[in-house]
Amino acid sequence: MTEVDSSFVPLSERTAFLVGQLGFHVGFQFTDALAPLGIGPRQYGMLRLLHARDGQTQQQLSDTLRIHRNAMVGLVDDLEKRGLVERRRHPADRRAYAIHLLPGAYELLAKTEPLVEKQDASLLEPLDPGERATLRALLNKVAVGAGLAPGVHPGLARGMGPTC
Amino acid sequence: MTEVDSSFVPLSERTAFLVGQLGFHVGFQFTDALAPLGIGPRQYGMLRLLHARDGQTQQQLSDTLRIHRNAMVGLVDDLEKRGLVERRRHPADRRAYAIHLLPGAYELLAKTEPLVEKQDASLLEPLDPGERATLRALLNKVAVGAGLAPGVHPGLARGMGPTC
Repeated sequence: MTEVDSSFVPLSERTAFLVGQLGFHVGFQFTDALAPLGIGPRQYGMLRLLHARDGQTQQQLSDTLRIHRNAMVGLVDDLEKRGLVERRRHPADRRAYAIHLLPGAYELLAKTEPLVEKQDASLLEPLDPGERATLRALLNKVAVGAGLAPGVHPGLARGMGPTC
Repeated sequence: MTEVDSSFVPLSERTAFLVGQLGFHVGFQFTDALAPLGIGPRQYGMLRLLHARDGQTQQQLSDTLRIHRNAMVGLVDDLEKRGLVERRRHPADRRAYAIHLLPGAYELLAKTEPLVEKQDASLLEPLDPGERATLRALLNKVAVGAGLAPGVHPGLARGMGPTC
């Protein structure tokens, strides 16, 4: 049994573990930071996506974020009720609705940006400018290798809340 | 409104976002890899912790992993039912139980190690050996700065399953 034991590399020396540990740490931290604004990471992700390209259909949002279309209907309903988005008839597809940001969403997103900046600054605090650039470049390389779509957080599809 | 828009740094250029994106990716990947073995990340985390130091009390496990003591009782019950651990009277504290790994747990952990190795290798595939060492060192620095306990995944406390 000792042989099995000694062959175990401590998790703290595994890069995948470190990335996971830090990734959940920042995920929860960001969820907590968003809470006073009354939105969660899913709402934030949707608003950011629409901010980058307004007027996407529910289906497009669903495909990009890999959130099931049924769940997407509920998310859009919720954002609509809060006056953050509105559904308009899609100009090219009469059966579809295009989702558009309303002024309230721009105001809300403007409030989130300092939170994002603060989180980045706090995370990178132990590193000098050269190390920060190196870390970002290496993480980008790894993210590309892992086939992750830029700006799309996998937690939005599978959830990052407490396990049921 | 254009001024607000143009001030937004793309999420893919934010290190905290990249870390979160990759962290959830590896977290879900590892959860999927563990599934055929019939355990989830919480069970894995508990078994690894006992593997590092056998005979801890439920309270100690609860404190380290920050899993609520009530949830911890259920987790230990479950591991006990599967023949992976057993509760024994704690030698120093008659009111407490020490949790001990059974041979089945060592066999199971031996099967998880190749999964952990494979995940690390796959994640680091785009990097050369020098870059791998650099990434690990920088992530370690950042993890220490963030006050994370070595080897303790925050997802275990708050869950990494689908949002309810």
